[in-house]
Amino acid sequence: MRPGRHFDWRTGRIDLTHGSGGRATTELVTELFVAAFAPGVRPELNDGTCLPASPGRLVMATDSHVISPLFFPGGDIGSLAVHGTINDLAMMGATPRFLSVAFILEEGLLLADLRRIVESMAHAARCAGVSIVTGDTKVVERGKGDGVFVTTAGIGFLADGVDISGNRARAGDRVLVSGSLGDHGAAILASREGLKFETTLISDSAPLNGLVADMIKAVPDIHCLRDATRGGLAAVLNELAHQSGVGIRVDEREIPVKAQVKAACELLGLDPLYLANEGKLVAVCRAEAAEALLDAMRGHPLGADSRIIGEVFADDHCFVEMDTVLGGRRAVDWLAGDPLPRIC
Amino acid sequence: MRPGRHFDWRTGRIDLTHGSGGRATTELVTELFVAAFAPGVRPELNDGTCLPASPGRLVMATDSHVISPLFFPGGDIGSLAVHGTINDLAMMGATPRFLSVAFILEEGLLLADLRRIVESMAHAARCAGVSIVTGDTKVVERGKGDGVFVTTAGIGFLADGVDISGNRARAGDRVLVSGSLGDHGAAILASREGLKFETTLISDSAPLNGLVADMIKAVPDIHCLRDATRGGLAAVLNELAHQSGVGIRVDEREIPVKAQVKAACELLGLDPLYLANEGKLVAVCRAEAAEALLDAMRGHPLGADSRIIGEVFADDHCFVEMDTVLGGRRAVDWLAGDPLPRIC
Repeated sequence: MRPGRHFDWRTGRIDLTHGSGGRATTELVTELFVAAFAPGVRPELNDGTCLPASPGRLVMATDSHVISPLFFPGGDIGSLAVHGTINDLAMMGATPRFLSVAFILEEGLLLADLRRIVESMAHAARCAGVSIVTGDTKVVERGKGDGVFVTTAGIGFLADGVDISGNRARAGDRVLVSGSLGDHGAAILASREGLKFETTLISDSAPLNGLVADMIKAVPDIHCLRDATRGGLAAVLNELAHQSGVGIRVDEREIPVKAQVKAACELLGLDPLYLANEGKLVAVCRAEAAEALLDAMRGHPLGADSRIIGEVFADDHCFVEMDTVLGGRRAVDWLAGDPLPRIC
Repeated sequence: MRPGRHFDWRTGRIDLTHGSGGRATTELVTELFVAAFAPGVRPELNDGTCLPASPGRLVMATDSHVISPLFFPGGDIGSLAVHGTINDLAMMGATPRFLSVAFILEEGLLLADLRRIVESMAHAARCAGVSIVTGDTKVVERGKGDGVFVTTAGIGFLADGVDISGNRARAGDRVLVSGSLGDHGAAILASREGLKFETTLISDSAPLNGLVADMIKAVPDIHCLRDATRGGLAAVLNELAHQSGVGIRVDEREIPVKAQVKAACELLGLDPLYLANEGKLVAVCRAEAAEALLDAMRGHPLGADSRIIGEVFADDHCFVEMDTVLGGRRAVDWLAGDPLPRIC
């Protein structure tokens, strides 16, 4: 990325002129955003971007990101915003292709921080095989925002025959997760609280489109996919149960949680089932396909620790329950409150 | 819209649980957003939304909206966010079809205000013939936002043969505007300052896709289209001049500005050329096509006051200049600062 000649990238800060739509806005767009997101391309700077026709159905998704702090072990608000929308598209079974990005910057934000975030977004998009094709920048006065908020929207292409939806879980289906739970939530909380063991807690933020592609190849008729972000596994299971009108039972012994995440949860009085993840998915498929799906998941680096954690049963009350390590059974409800605001 | 049974729509306020991803988030999504944006549809509540294949090329655009105040004469942040992205797509010559919407809510926002904004968005989308198909909601703590920020992204379909871009202005081309300038900026400023004549100042916020469709039908080879938002006409002319590598000369006598907007500008020391518009476009086309384009524009309600205001000339310095009412000629530069932060 060429260093933008109009900016002091060491000590400069965002001011209101960067959101004016005048010269300062254009310089920021050209020298930072276009340079990072479309290096070597002569910027067109139009109101939108023209893209090729879709080969099949389209999928659209969007996510705002307001995470605090902006930088954390394993990522930052930029990579998170790219992964977040990629994962939403992937959970529909689509191949993510194009992203838009809209920044709401607070007056006083260090240009160096913005640049670090933008470069991280460019890197994350490149790694996941998607293009950031259009964007927008607004600036709000000091005290009316919080550094930077990043909203991404995405377009994915959906192959014929793929029909993945939260309302397709059926009694007898198996429930799988793609790896250890709670890593993102624990990492953010630890970095906020300055916990001593924070260095071993790292966000799992990652793009899941490659994993999902492998899964669909192995089992084209996956019923449900959902990334376990805000609200954690508990929220996803309750969402799927309600959307499909079924009950779900999981086995605590099969749910992978890292030792350091468990330790952090015990210290802070949190339950890993409710902690956010940013690189883990929950899948539901027919019982007969579960082993094949598990094999496909384990064959991908982001699914190496996948497990079959439970099954779907007929239940008009859409109950989610868990067989505990101690041999009991308990309800897994949604959380009423929010243990971790601004986790994504 | 059915009244959401879980909410007190009179005195209730947004709190952090509405952004938790748990039950309160789902209730807000179901009882407010889905009820307004997709009435009568059984919500699928997936991470994204599946859409039909595009008949041709796609266009993607996005805009964050941070306008203050949230409600103003002629609109609110909701209708503005819908019109903003529709207009960005239309300026590419595309037919806007689908919008995503992402809300960043500040803790303490009145639910009644959010509901009013959401219903305004639904109305604006319906009037413009676009569908709001997917969304996201985040909540930030009191003092870390400013009521509500709304980010929309949009997908439009682009017919074969349409090639509208800011880099296509050529010497000899004519420059047109679709109506009076500065209405939005003057209305916002007046409502902030509590000016006495504010009741006669009304934002021009409107969806321009219908006007553009009529224009393309009359003159398929329009060279440039740009809506004159932040930075006003002055910013658009400078953008087009720089993107196309040409000079542009306009005639002040032809530039329509309402008497009350002129009066507000004189009182406040502002220039209507730099004031934001949210329902006006600038078009550039070949000289021979200009009258036909003007006729088409005047035939649409949103273009009734259209004018040919100037022409493009060869100039490596990309100079924008104006013949003034007084018979002189002056440069029309970008603004260095921002006279009106948070105008959109």
